[in-house]
Amino acid sequence: MTDTCLSLTPLRINRVAIDTYHENVAYLHRDCELYRAEGFQALSKIEIHQDHKRIIAVLNVVDDTNIVDTESLGLSEQAFEQLGIPEGSLVTVCHAQPAHSMEFVRHKMSGERLSEAQLAHIIEDIADNRYSKPEIAAFLVSVAEAGLDRDEVYYLTKAMVNSGARIHWDEPMVVDKHCIGGIPGNRTSMIVIPIVAEFGLMCPKTSSRAITSPAGTADTMEVLAEVDLDPDRLHRIVRELRGCLAWGGTSKLAPADDILISVERPLSIDSSEQMVASILSKKSACGSTHLLIDIPTGPAAKVRTMRDAMKLRKLFEYVGTRIGMTIEVLLTDGRQPIGRGIGPALEARDVMQVLSNDPDAPRDLREKSLRLAGHMIEFENDVRGGEGYNLARDILDSGRALTKMQAIIDAQGRRNEAVPLGRLTQDILASRDGYVTGINNLVLARVARLAGAPMDKGAGVDVFCRLGDPVKKGQVLYRIYAEFQSDFQFALSAVDQNSGFDIGDNPSLVTPWSH
Amino acid sequence: MTDTCLSLTPLRINRVAIDTYHENVAYLHRDCELYRAEGFQALSKIEIHQDHKRIIAVLNVVDDTNIVDTESLGLSEQAFEQLGIPEGSLVTVCHAQPAHSMEFVRHKMSGERLSEAQLAHIIEDIADNRYSKPEIAAFLVSVAEAGLDRDEVYYLTKAMVNSGARIHWDEPMVVDKHCIGGIPGNRTSMIVIPIVAEFGLMCPKTSSRAITSPAGTADTMEVLAEVDLDPDRLHRIVRELRGCLAWGGTSKLAPADDILISVERPLSIDSSEQMVASILSKKSACGSTHLLIDIPTGPAAKVRTMRDAMKLRKLFEYVGTRIGMTIEVLLTDGRQPIGRGIGPALEARDVMQVLSNDPDAPRDLREKSLRLAGHMIEFENDVRGGEGYNLARDILDSGRALTKMQAIIDAQGRRNEAVPLGRLTQDILASRDGYVTGINNLVLARVARLAGAPMDKGAGVDVFCRLGDPVKKGQVLYRIYAEFQSDFQFALSAVDQNSGFDIGDNPSLVTPWSH
Repeated sequence: MTDTCLSLTPLRINRVAIDTYHENVAYLHRDCELYRAEGFQALSKIEIHQDHKRIIAVLNVVDDTNIVDTESLGLSEQAFEQLGIPEGSLVTVCHAQPAHSMEFVRHKMSGERLSEAQLAHIIEDIADNRYSKPEIAAFLVSVAEAGLDRDEVYYLTKAMVNSGARIHWDEPMVVDKHCIGGIPGNRTSMIVIPIVAEFGLMCPKTSSRAITSPAGTADTMEVLAEVDLDPDRLHRIVRELRGCLAWGGTSKLAPADDILISVERPLSIDSSEQMVASILSKKSACGSTHLLIDIPTGPAAKVRTMRDAMKLRKLFEYVGTRIGMTIEVLLTDGRQPIGRGIGPALEARDVMQVLSNDPDAPRDLREKSLRLAGHMIEFENDVRGGEGYNLARDILDSGRALTKMQAIIDAQGRRNEAVPLGRLTQDILASRDGYVTGINNLVLARVARLAGAPMDKGAGVDVFCRLGDPVKKGQVLYRIYAEFQSDFQFALSAVDQNSGFDIGDNPSLVTPWSH
Repeated sequence: MTDTCLSLTPLRINRVAIDTYHENVAYLHRDCELYRAEGFQALSKIEIHQDHKRIIAVLNVVDDTNIVDTESLGLSEQAFEQLGIPEGSLVTVCHAQPAHSMEFVRHKMSGERLSEAQLAHIIEDIADNRYSKPEIAAFLVSVAEAGLDRDEVYYLTKAMVNSGARIHWDEPMVVDKHCIGGIPGNRTSMIVIPIVAEFGLMCPKTSSRAITSPAGTADTMEVLAEVDLDPDRLHRIVRELRGCLAWGGTSKLAPADDILISVERPLSIDSSEQMVASILSKKSACGSTHLLIDIPTGPAAKVRTMRDAMKLRKLFEYVGTRIGMTIEVLLTDGRQPIGRGIGPALEARDVMQVLSNDPDAPRDLREKSLRLAGHMIEFENDVRGGEGYNLARDILDSGRALTKMQAIIDAQGRRNEAVPLGRLTQDILASRDGYVTGINNLVLARVARLAGAPMDKGAGVDVFCRLGDPVKKGQVLYRIYAEFQSDFQFALSAVDQNSGFDIGDNPSLVTPWSH
């Protein structure tokens, strides 16, 4: 790959104060000798070296010496940080060769099976920033379209774990849970983790912020406490309390996963193989040994049929076992939101109601959390099958889960001011008498997002009716909260098109859920 | 799509002197009210409006008021030109909604057939810059992987023609030729066009510059004359001389094609469906009514087997006919370079030797050019089948083709100084006695590129032996020309690894070519 490296005068790097997200950009002046002499005009990617440090960057050409002069190479914030050498250092610049492993992506496009070495090579190049975004898209689409068999998913997962650092907790059992998502509300982790940590299992839960949903666990926990903890502090908290609820935004663990996600999400590509590799690689890199996976199934969930859910379960089990984790998969009811609130502050309220044994707490959130916690507790060999639920319920009912949660909040850094709910509200009413026969998760999630969640923590939707409930014309189905007038109007006009609720004459019209 | 447009204070646009190639980039200061207030942090794409003008751009965040201040929106060169309003104008900025037609790309990923309306929608969105580069890559990969049937290729071609302007020549017959490429040298157009124009057919040939090859017709013609002509001048020349050899770099004709190519080329995706749609849409937009397609076939050509060549021929014929063109496809010998020179100045020399009836002119280039010109002349109804070749040969042998070429050169603007060949040269010698049994097009093209072609017009490779020729140990197979020492070294080290020539004991080892 070094055969086209140019032995020209080195350039001095300077930091250009432009934030280019996940993409490295280098800025070269049009009159720079390097640009003029050597046919750099045709290039879109260059390789920048200093000794053993090396990054790949997209080249932009500049005509303004205020941005970069003719003897320097400007680097965007990302590129500067990734190269990690001081401003003014001398670097050499080469033609970036296309990543050799793109050949294997083309194999996949022809429908071929990829070997362990080929997938490892692809992931190594991606983690090394050798792929442009269109190349990453090509990889993702080729995989989504031609498919990966379960061994290929295992190779991919293993390669993604190996692409970065790995946390070692030096404990025989480190438990975690993960929901594949798609169900608004559903903030079970903030109830499950205090219960399981109080039971005594180590569960260092790191969660994501919402990307396409109205709230992630990290967004919701942030209503109550700091979540952006440095690794040392996080480790101290976990050692002391056996659990935490922090943001997992460390790009050092399975970094290839973050890079893939940054391209996958905007493209809305949903490949179950990619999802399994993504979840298992991140959890394995976080040091989890035992993992509970929640797959909600329903007509407006990510997984729509029981057949697809079973297929996904087998894939999680196969790959999880091969990378050395103990995997338990639960298929859960995904026909409607879990809990009442959708949006960080509303969901945090639900969670604290359940933990406080408030008689008004949403029963579905309590029941689902106890079920999940029970399964996690049963990871412990000494617990008999079927006893986990009761143990979890005792911990919750006795108030010990609440005490643990308060300790975690204090340790992470309690938020002193309560987050108020959005000041603009609108009740959405039933248009007729009847029964709630359908609730569309996607519509309610979209309304909550348009209303401002998760950016505005007090924005969202509070849902008052559930599937099968009888309703009277004019009864409140749900309430919208927003902070800004423009967001409020967007949410209302979305509801005008589709409220997300179906009202029928007969409760038997509700699609049954059966496992 | 306008439901998320924000009614905030407009921003003043300023031009940022950064050339971001084919991508629009907008620069927003981190302290800009717009960026702070409305959750723009999560965005990667924004929509910029003034009245009916609208562009989509990638958002970069800036921390330096020298680049953009907190009341302005900076636009890269491309974005500024595309929006086409003066600096200092006020614009509004919105969330850019994902292009709705990406839904159809996901259909294609699932293996579905796309309708005429769906393909039209995709191409309209691409021409409108609504697709990010990863989205374009997703479209290209989905199509390459799942395939397009011939009606889908027709719909795609039609949509690409409709994506931009179209030239109308107001003549019943406008002829053109196109080679699908992959063969070094092979500069037939510069011989064919003068012959056919002299015969009297209108042939306004516009060509590309090389992107991945050592020379395009535009690069080679540029050794002799100006090729970058404004539309008015080009039209005058064609009216007067019946032909021209200009650069077709106008992004107004089938612009979706240029956008697709800018992503397709770096990915090295070779889909014959995409190729057919690209060539036919560009030629149709240029106003051609009759088109000759040259498909060279050989072990190191783009099309490797006669079976693939026939399949491609049928696709060109089907789609060409449906968009209303008369298509003639020739399958030609693609086992080795055509002519001696590879690189702009060397190829221009070959062309002028053929046109001048120089006894030393490369015979293969002369013969292939006459064959192609003959077929084009037979587009004329009055010419009997089989007479075209003789008519073409008479025009060439009589010197009238040369006179026409000189007239075209003068009309386009003759280059006063001859382009010298590269001053650094190296002869590559036969390592043993025997016969030339194989010549690798890809290797010779790569060596010529490494030596500096097409950027350095005098750089390239001059080939002295052809398939089947007897050679003695130490005999010169080809000569490398380079201008710069570093390029020269790259070319030589590539040759060290693989010279591109196979020498065998027996001329019968040469793969035969048969149509």
